[in-house]
Amino acid sequence: MDFVDLRYKPEKNGDVVTTVYVESKDLKKAANEIAAESSVGTWTKISTMKERVMRNLAARVFSIRKEGGGAVMKIAYPVELFEDGNVPQILSDIAGNIFGMKGVDNLRLLDFEIPDKYARSFKGPEFGMEGVRRIMGTSKNRRPHIGTIVKPKVGLNPKETAKVAYDAWAGGIDFVKDDENLTSQTFCKFEERIARVLEAKEKAESETGKKKMYAANITASSEVMLGRAEFVKAHGGNCIMVDIITAGFSGLQFIRNQKLGMVIHGHRAMYAAFARNKRHGIAMLPLAKLARMAGVDQLHIGAVVGKMEGGRGEVLGIHKTINGKWAGLKPVFSVCSGGLAPENVPDLVRIFGNDIVIQAGGGVHGHPNGTRAGATALLQAVEAAVRGIPLDKYAKTHEELRLSPAKWSLGKQYSHRTKIV
Amino acid sequence: MDFVDLRYKPEKNGDVVTTVYVESKDLKKAANEIAAESSVGTWTKISTMKERVMRNLAARVFSIRKEGGGAVMKIAYPVELFEDGNVPQILSDIAGNIFGMKGVDNLRLLDFEIPDKYARSFKGPEFGMEGVRRIMGTSKNRRPHIGTIVKPKVGLNPKETAKVAYDAWAGGIDFVKDDENLTSQTFCKFEERIARVLEAKEKAESETGKKKMYAANITASSEVMLGRAEFVKAHGGNCIMVDIITAGFSGLQFIRNQKLGMVIHGHRAMYAAFARNKRHGIAMLPLAKLARMAGVDQLHIGAVVGKMEGGRGEVLGIHKTINGKWAGLKPVFSVCSGGLAPENVPDLVRIFGNDIVIQAGGGVHGHPNGTRAGATALLQAVEAAVRGIPLDKYAKTHEELRLSPAKWSLGKQYSHRTKIV
Repeated sequence: MDFVDLRYKPEKNGDVVTTVYVESKDLKKAANEIAAESSVGTWTKISTMKERVMRNLAARVFSIRKEGGGAVMKIAYPVELFEDGNVPQILSDIAGNIFGMKGVDNLRLLDFEIPDKYARSFKGPEFGMEGVRRIMGTSKNRRPHIGTIVKPKVGLNPKETAKVAYDAWAGGIDFVKDDENLTSQTFCKFEERIARVLEAKEKAESETGKKKMYAANITASSEVMLGRAEFVKAHGGNCIMVDIITAGFSGLQFIRNQKLGMVIHGHRAMYAAFARNKRHGIAMLPLAKLARMAGVDQLHIGAVVGKMEGGRGEVLGIHKTINGKWAGLKPVFSVCSGGLAPENVPDLVRIFGNDIVIQAGGGVHGHPNGTRAGATALLQAVEAAVRGIPLDKYAKTHEELRLSPAKWSLGKQYSHRTKIV
Repeated sequence: MDFVDLRYKPEKNGDVVTTVYVESKDLKKAANEIAAESSVGTWTKISTMKERVMRNLAARVFSIRKEGGGAVMKIAYPVELFEDGNVPQILSDIAGNIFGMKGVDNLRLLDFEIPDKYARSFKGPEFGMEGVRRIMGTSKNRRPHIGTIVKPKVGLNPKETAKVAYDAWAGGIDFVKDDENLTSQTFCKFEERIARVLEAKEKAESETGKKKMYAANITASSEVMLGRAEFVKAHGGNCIMVDIITAGFSGLQFIRNQKLGMVIHGHRAMYAAFARNKRHGIAMLPLAKLARMAGVDQLHIGAVVGKMEGGRGEVLGIHKTINGKWAGLKPVFSVCSGGLAPENVPDLVRIFGNDIVIQAGGGVHGHPNGTRAGATALLQAVEAAVRGIPLDKYAKTHEELRLSPAKWSLGKQYSHRTKIV
């Protein structure tokens, strides 16, 4: 068992340490094979191996703790195994072939820790949360930002999209974003949409006297993303959205490396294809760390409440990790999203505090008086929550909040919350 | 249930059709939510919905068949939902948020079909299998290509790497590749490695009179990948490797779109993070189709035998799909890899036929007489398999094959096959 050394103590400045959950009929053999396959080994003795390679670059499993039907293992990888600033490369080591080995039945990457020096080889966010707050003028009054997704997800033309965005901003929303499946389809070509929405942004800013932000979804092949990002910049935009998993880290790092001077909003569609099953895949926590290393300024992390998966402990842990101090990488602004409505705001503020973006799509556009009223209702919910006033009390003097579709609302416009149209 | 219509017949030229496996306490409700979330819907009635959007762009679940603990569903998506030539965008629709919805317990994308016109909006492989065979001079003698991965996976310096590559080529190997976790670490910087290995390739070509190929692993952020690809080209290389999942489709399409005139070898580290669990995630078949659309010329598909997961039916199905006719997209050269040795060649040829690349790392460098003998043994195994001669018989007159480490070999140098060093 050349790759298992339970007496080994990892070096804080010398080792990347991963935590993995493993199921296998033979856990110790699996531990050996995992550490071999993800560092310098293969399945057989080879003539080309060098003694110095085994000594300097072999990964070591240094902890195996039985848990559930398997074991949680800790693996130390010499940091020399990794290329500075290359996110795909770290994945190919710590989250690569090992998932497909016959010797393991299930394997889940739960977390990783990296030496500060290696962490600093990544650019990290250009703006981070404080940079976004500076743009938006909320550095002092540190309330949660509120955002909306233009809905329906796809199908509106550029003019209709701009109208929805304008209504949301005029009603009090800070941040408007495209949905993840809207890029540049024939019904809503990118250039025309962006031009019109950014005009609407300027109008809303001049009317409200407040700074607004629009995340234009540029997700595509890298050269197309760059062209789109430059178009956004040329039209006065301050933010772009990259769907970081469907696009991938090569494209995300490329966009960050351009230093475009625009906030990068990270959507995470498809993450749950490998994060959902608790016994296999890659948890959201390591993905979120990689996204911070690559350089997203805002990142969807789940919401605990709402329509998307993710328990309180897990999602709060992700928030604290990407929003906390880390080797000089700027803190990421966490985005809570997915089936949220004004009624969820007090819970969100209680769970996460004020340093989050609260995003509601249906919860804004589903307001009986339309998008603008829905936006105002969401803002009112934030005002109430930040001041510690119960929503039902605040709703008595705030019409939009009172009419907002929710269990607590007086209106009760909706018999159930899953009806689509 | 606005998004479920069991009488709907999908249009071959108008719909993208996905096949998904779903587990949920309420399958019909889940079906509705999946089709809504992946097309135009959200969790509530919204003021901004347009009748034409629902009519023209809503996805429809048109088949629900109970299977295992859940159901296999078929979903039709109007092709207008998709942007031409954008792989990340199709994923954001058919494989995006739906994995994370609370309303489903498990969800697996099993397959998808797309209209030919939409398929043609993707570049597909620049060379494809026939292009690779043309470069290598095997268009007529259509034996399997044989490849090796330089081993140890990482740790050799550029000179040592070039020596291993040279030995492999001199022994009869067609194709040498970097391993997935080798990019440009301090012990083996990319530029020096590539320069030396390409020198070795030239030497081997001139000595053997045969064309050779080297897949230089360029995986990194897109602009770094392009710089590396151009370096390979400038030094006479004919192939680059992209780790397509860790890099992602945005970067892969970017590299393909450059028309570099070099074969793109697609490694798939990390695919099993979402393909392994049979009840959740994304199966390899749809990933392989996306890789073909994006434009890989060669793609790892598994091997049935060997150290990596993947049953016969599944892997053979992937091979036939990416190697068969499809809307003018060139056929991909399937690569079988992972714990293979000469002893596996007859099985591989029996299962897949001759139109594959058989790759062995440990199975070549593990030969008792070293890499060159291991390469020759692998070539001998292919010669025997193609001619239908049993290996043990062929081994009697072929020294290298006879000494190759394997169950059938006379030597039996290895007591077991999982020992690493």
